[in-house]
Amino acid sequence: MTYCVGMLLEEGLVMVADSRTNAGVDHISTFAKMSRWEVPGERVLVMMTSGNLAVTQAVVNMVSEGVGAEEETLLTVPGMFAAARLVGRALREVWREDGEAMEAQGADFTAAIILGGQVRGRPLRLFQIYAAGNFIEATADTPYFQIGEAKYGKPILDRGLSATSSLTEGVKLALVSMDSTLRSNISVGLPIDLVVYERDALAITQNRRIEEGDPYFTRISERWSRALRTAFSRLPDPEW
Amino acid sequence: MTYCVGMLLEEGLVMVADSRTNAGVDHISTFAKMSRWEVPGERVLVMMTSGNLAVTQAVVNMVSEGVGAEEETLLTVPGMFAAARLVGRALREVWREDGEAMEAQGADFTAAIILGGQVRGRPLRLFQIYAAGNFIEATADTPYFQIGEAKYGKPILDRGLSATSSLTEGVKLALVSMDSTLRSNISVGLPIDLVVYERDALAITQNRRIEEGDPYFTRISERWSRALRTAFSRLPDPEW
Repeated sequence: MTYCVGMLLEEGLVMVADSRTNAGVDHISTFAKMSRWEVPGERVLVMMTSGNLAVTQAVVNMVSEGVGAEEETLLTVPGMFAAARLVGRALREVWREDGEAMEAQGADFTAAIILGGQVRGRPLRLFQIYAAGNFIEATADTPYFQIGEAKYGKPILDRGLSATSSLTEGVKLALVSMDSTLRSNISVGLPIDLVVYERDALAITQNRRIEEGDPYFTRISERWSRALRTAFSRLPDPEW
Repeated sequence: MTYCVGMLLEEGLVMVADSRTNAGVDHISTFAKMSRWEVPGERVLVMMTSGNLAVTQAVVNMVSEGVGAEEETLLTVPGMFAAARLVGRALREVWREDGEAMEAQGADFTAAIILGGQVRGRPLRLFQIYAAGNFIEATADTPYFQIGEAKYGKPILDRGLSATSSLTEGVKLALVSMDSTLRSNISVGLPIDLVVYERDALAITQNRRIEEGDPYFTRISERWSRALRTAFSRLPDPEW
């Protein structure tokens, strides 16, 4: 399983992904689900993927090496809308190539992708791209997307996140959301990849891999557990 | 959708169910998902259902009116294991009767049931019964079952609930878990049915319907939101 969350805030972008892949509980491995394309001063794009790993790895390779006759890549597209369309085209190309054989052999053609970033002179944007290559865009009303095992970590985002949250708040919410997911689904696991991008910086602001025992993540996780228990113990008892 | 949670605690049983049924967002109604069989001093049984409403209502009727040639009901079974088997037999009878036509017409034969209770002189037990009529039992290690839209409300149960939690703690955790689910899935809705049963009481201790605007549920919900925001605002910022 996978859990990734991408946030489009007024201050910039927060992208967080776990890195556990499983094909059954006896076949668990670590694969990065986050890819970055960065030309400092010119563009930053970050993509996170869930679904069939063969499909999503093919897409990552294609948008790096070139899609179609024009051999367009995420490093050559003029803006984020073109970037999302390119990822969509790559998905459909993989589907045309592998889809029939996969279906015949009972493998699901599944893929969900979050793509965020900015090209110089163009706005920062965040998209969620479906397996059919179509996509939607985050707005101030709904400033985040989740893919993979999304439900455990959603309530805290629904309560805490808005487009005006700071990047620091976004990082903390993403880590608490990830922590809730790790606790409830063992097929989502550390390490976690984290990217923070400050709007108009045109260079990645923070790029971290959070491993088992990371002091900050451990502190957040312990403090949050304790705070929840305290908060819970202070809830009023029913009068009945 | 549905959300129900049943807890088997040392002190007794807590059962909570929402009451919204939907067949598409333009077809939402209120149906109780909780049924009670009570003979004070002799037995208390509480059943909560999710899945296809025609299937689960048929099961509720059958275990009330009589299953098989012996016409056994939840009021005649000698104990909780027999009660769970009776519900399983009813499920299979509905499946034999309706399953083929449902499948041919593209309707899923889905059902998930939580059954808890006690017969005089026998232990208090809690079961989760699957659509095939087979079932599992709650233990001190895993003292709760959820059916329906379970994921949003699971993290708080995983953090807060154990078999030694008091009935009051169980009620509060169940309501907080329900509140998280209501916020994240509009197809789960008020009113909420709540039953508390004190072990060996052989009569329902609390039986409440929590409607929109219920003062206690509103207070729990508001306090919990505020406590989460406070707890979150106190989390340490990253050092980086």
